[in-house]
Amino acid sequence: MAEEVKLYGTWVSPFSRRIELALKLKGVPFEYIGVDLSNKSPELLKYNPIHKKIPVLVHNGKSIVESLIILEYIDDTWKNNPILPRDPHQRAVARFWAKFIDEKLLATGMKASLAEGKEKELLNEEILEQMKLLENELNGKDFFGGEAIGLVDIVATVVAFWFPVSHEVLGVEVITQEKFPVLLKWIGKLQEIDVVSQSRPPREKHVAHVRARMEGLNSGSK
Amino acid sequence: MAEEVKLYGTWVSPFSRRIELALKLKGVPFEYIGVDLSNKSPELLKYNPIHKKIPVLVHNGKSIVESLIILEYIDDTWKNNPILPRDPHQRAVARFWAKFIDEKLLATGMKASLAEGKEKELLNEEILEQMKLLENELNGKDFFGGEAIGLVDIVATVVAFWFPVSHEVLGVEVITQEKFPVLLKWIGKLQEIDVVSQSRPPREKHVAHVRARMEGLNSGSK
Repeated sequence: MAEEVKLYGTWVSPFSRRIELALKLKGVPFEYIGVDLSNKSPELLKYNPIHKKIPVLVHNGKSIVESLIILEYIDDTWKNNPILPRDPHQRAVARFWAKFIDEKLLATGMKASLAEGKEKELLNEEILEQMKLLENELNGKDFFGGEAIGLVDIVATVVAFWFPVSHEVLGVEVITQEKFPVLLKWIGKLQEIDVVSQSRPPREKHVAHVRARMEGLNSGSK
Repeated sequence: MAEEVKLYGTWVSPFSRRIELALKLKGVPFEYIGVDLSNKSPELLKYNPIHKKIPVLVHNGKSIVESLIILEYIDDTWKNNPILPRDPHQRAVARFWAKFIDEKLLATGMKASLAEGKEKELLNEEILEQMKLLENELNGKDFFGGEAIGLVDIVATVVAFWFPVSHEVLGVEVITQEKFPVLLKWIGKLQEIDVVSQSRPPREKHVAHVRARMEGLNSGSK
């Protein structure tokens, strides 16, 4: 039977883009289906009835949801170009940082984007501390995965390519040579990898999208 | 080299108890170290510097944190009596429900315990709906893992043994024959397994602990 692999996502979501990247790293051909989250299709609701969210991977008719779980599925299914290390302790470390990015760093970022005044300031400091932990973890290595990109690099593309777009729109510089030299060098290395560049939103379109969303948020709070 | 396995936990935490259960299912001897969370030891802070939480598993000097990650580590390290299925899609389904219990059901339970009035009512309804999803998932099987207990059963011991203690203290009956016959039968099957019974808090002590904590919460809100 021919393999049928479909990915439901949105062009700007770091969560579906990371699945796209993993499939491309493995060389797995797939059909990409863009989803309109303001008007969820019956197909999306069928494949992800509980969370009703993207990304959804459908492999030979069976659906898998939640991006970290999909990444594990991809690595369990296609064994070439491993995403997770083989050593159990190194696997646990990779899972720890992937979870840290999603549940700590991105969660704090989400809170900060909605906060104001002193609270926003404190949350922004927390984000810097969390990014410092990533900087330290990466220190001395080309990639979080060692010599090649792995689970944490795939998940951390949100830090490499989504964070700087938000910073540009906000008019701040965060990932600088002075503060985050290791992350900055790593972003440069990621950009040299073709499939990584293919799996991120076009920069101009991305900036325009974030700008429009932030203006929407600001006008909404007035 | 002799294996050295240490588990840092508390007697009443479903998160460290689930690690205890997994180690016992695998037949891995370990040293249990009770942690005083109100006075965290330097050892705990050394082994889990970022989250400073239990459980922590220390295997031959290397620490692993976050209970779902520890369960994967245990299954990656000791191959007998598998906790996760071998089939990639079934693995993804097990991971989905484990994550669902921790991030949806328990998160809603935590919110409900702090809420009041109409909000509490709505959250309690949400918990029942989430438990209904578990009931449906289990329907037709002895265990979430099929014929033997697996990842989801281990994680769901919190529903089997912690939920009923809270319900008893609150004076409500939730997991009844009428509403949750499948979960009720499954709890009965779990209770027949020696290592499961050994890995839960003593019932009387557990009830007294929850009662004291709830009274503390109530007096705190006055």
